[in-house]
Amino acid sequence: MQPVLADSVKLTDDGVLILDRRRFPFERDWVLCRTAEDVAQAIEDMVTQSSGPYFAALYGMVLKARTLENEPFVHAREELAKTAKHLENTRRTNNALRKATAAVLKAVDEAQDVTKALEGARTGDQAYRAKSQALGEHTANLLPWEATVMTHCWADLYLTETVRAAQNQGKRLRFFCTETRPYLQGARLTAETLIEMGVDTTLITDGMGAAVLQSGEVDALVTAADRVTMDGHVVNKVGTLGLAVAAHAFGVPFHAQVQAPDLHAPTTQHVEIEYRDGAEVLQVLGRPSATPRVKGLYPAFDVTPPRFVTDVVTDRGVFDAGELDKYYEGEQR
Amino acid sequence: MQPVLADSVKLTDDGVLILDRRRFPFERDWVLCRTAEDVAQAIEDMVTQSSGPYFAALYGMVLKARTLENEPFVHAREELAKTAKHLENTRRTNNALRKATAAVLKAVDEAQDVTKALEGARTGDQAYRAKSQALGEHTANLLPWEATVMTHCWADLYLTETVRAAQNQGKRLRFFCTETRPYLQGARLTAETLIEMGVDTTLITDGMGAAVLQSGEVDALVTAADRVTMDGHVVNKVGTLGLAVAAHAFGVPFHAQVQAPDLHAPTTQHVEIEYRDGAEVLQVLGRPSATPRVKGLYPAFDVTPPRFVTDVVTDRGVFDAGELDKYYEGEQR
Repeated sequence: MQPVLADSVKLTDDGVLILDRRRFPFERDWVLCRTAEDVAQAIEDMVTQSSGPYFAALYGMVLKARTLENEPFVHAREELAKTAKHLENTRRTNNALRKATAAVLKAVDEAQDVTKALEGARTGDQAYRAKSQALGEHTANLLPWEATVMTHCWADLYLTETVRAAQNQGKRLRFFCTETRPYLQGARLTAETLIEMGVDTTLITDGMGAAVLQSGEVDALVTAADRVTMDGHVVNKVGTLGLAVAAHAFGVPFHAQVQAPDLHAPTTQHVEIEYRDGAEVLQVLGRPSATPRVKGLYPAFDVTPPRFVTDVVTDRGVFDAGELDKYYEGEQR
Repeated sequence: MQPVLADSVKLTDDGVLILDRRRFPFERDWVLCRTAEDVAQAIEDMVTQSSGPYFAALYGMVLKARTLENEPFVHAREELAKTAKHLENTRRTNNALRKATAAVLKAVDEAQDVTKALEGARTGDQAYRAKSQALGEHTANLLPWEATVMTHCWADLYLTETVRAAQNQGKRLRFFCTETRPYLQGARLTAETLIEMGVDTTLITDGMGAAVLQSGEVDALVTAADRVTMDGHVVNKVGTLGLAVAAHAFGVPFHAQVQAPDLHAPTTQHVEIEYRDGAEVLQVLGRPSATPRVKGLYPAFDVTPPRFVTDVVTDRGVFDAGELDKYYEGEQR
């Protein structure tokens, strides 16, 4: 069964429809973004996350291009570039946004025609799905026939493609997923989607991961990465680091999934960690969960050093965190 | 200022008043337990936790003793022993319950008189406070003059006495506390109490601890322990293990606080880990936080092996996790 989150950004004649992940699965609301600015706002407001912003940015660019069809190309291209910057800046740790806007601009530039934005977006969409599928297959290959996997946050297409590939291989999966405060992506998105896909799923709080890893029940820790630096640091949803360190301490392999290591980030110095409003930590789904007198801190991501990363799984296969240069071998840089 | 949680179990003529920690500080309700059975139920229902059950058990025994004053001593003593067992079984990982009932029974047995239960309870109450004070002083001695401390869950009198001692020494404290899902003791009890005591306090989710420990900002991880085995394993609220492993990985000392290592637990084989209802993981303060289709797992405690424990701070001073025998040196066993 195709889980609903595997296709949760849709281009329509009216705009871009984005499934609101903030309340999913309690509510299944689709936000209609009529303009690229609406799309940027939705990304900024966390209506969607993980791969969602990538697809949203692709089709956000298309919305902008639609408004520019009758403009002279040079002007239209300038306007489109502004929209690209705007979309890229909505979530600065998320590298996929730049890839999305680049995919659209490439098609536009090649034809010197803004109406080619749609074609660029479709190409970017398919490329992402194909890479996720390859990455999922490589990950599934690493799992035993009866695999108990721990994951954190919501790995989106990497997760669904990993599960699909493992199921196609006839492997039996069992998952532990962390709830992933403050937004509860694990409790809501990952748990729901795994169950949609027929996987035996157990939810734990973020503090329980180490105990479950220590128990010997878990064969692998598998998470997506928002970015992986060329020197093997894994940037992902805050909480990944703690699980990776515990997995390392208790002999559980940690497979970090990313389509490609980030050539623009040789080291972590080249990655800006996004801090979101600390007030988010004081609430759960909009209701207070802490004394109102305390201040919160919300680093949205953490950085796992390569010594805690067993390997990095990409669309081109599995790489040691210390040899990510090999991903680009033979490729013009 | 005396924080409200430092005196949250009170014996009255009508029964035992217990501050309901489940909704604190949003609501400040006191639960009146008219009988020892009510007290047992309140402990089981998590109305109070940490040192709360100890004080509740002390005064629960007094309530029972009040009903037995006109009974023949042998019968009364038997009934009191049943109540002791009942109270002890409410939270099986919590060793303090046995100490509470023993303190009351000791006074009763010495005088062969159940009316001495109150005296036993008062003695137990004062002993616990005096030991917590000593332990707090020993902990404060370990902290630098400007100390940033991370703590997890709610260490109750160990925390308040540590803060008080450090403040008396003229040390400046700053705390990071984890929210501690699923009951949010950190977000509610620890954060509120630290702020009542004038400490600069920052709240993080349970998944953020490793990132903050990695940042270099934290001088020490300090948590209470529900039990420490004689071979140096620290049993405490689930989540402690992950923080301890991360602290170890990033060179931050972990001081585990317990009045005394547990002579009845030479190893972890002698400690039963309490599993609570997995449904607790699917909600926050009574409201759903996860897809209702998933099952939850709730190990209430985890076990930190001695290799991740810098030292164990007791009322008799600071011990290496590998030399806890020394705590009892010179004492008849």
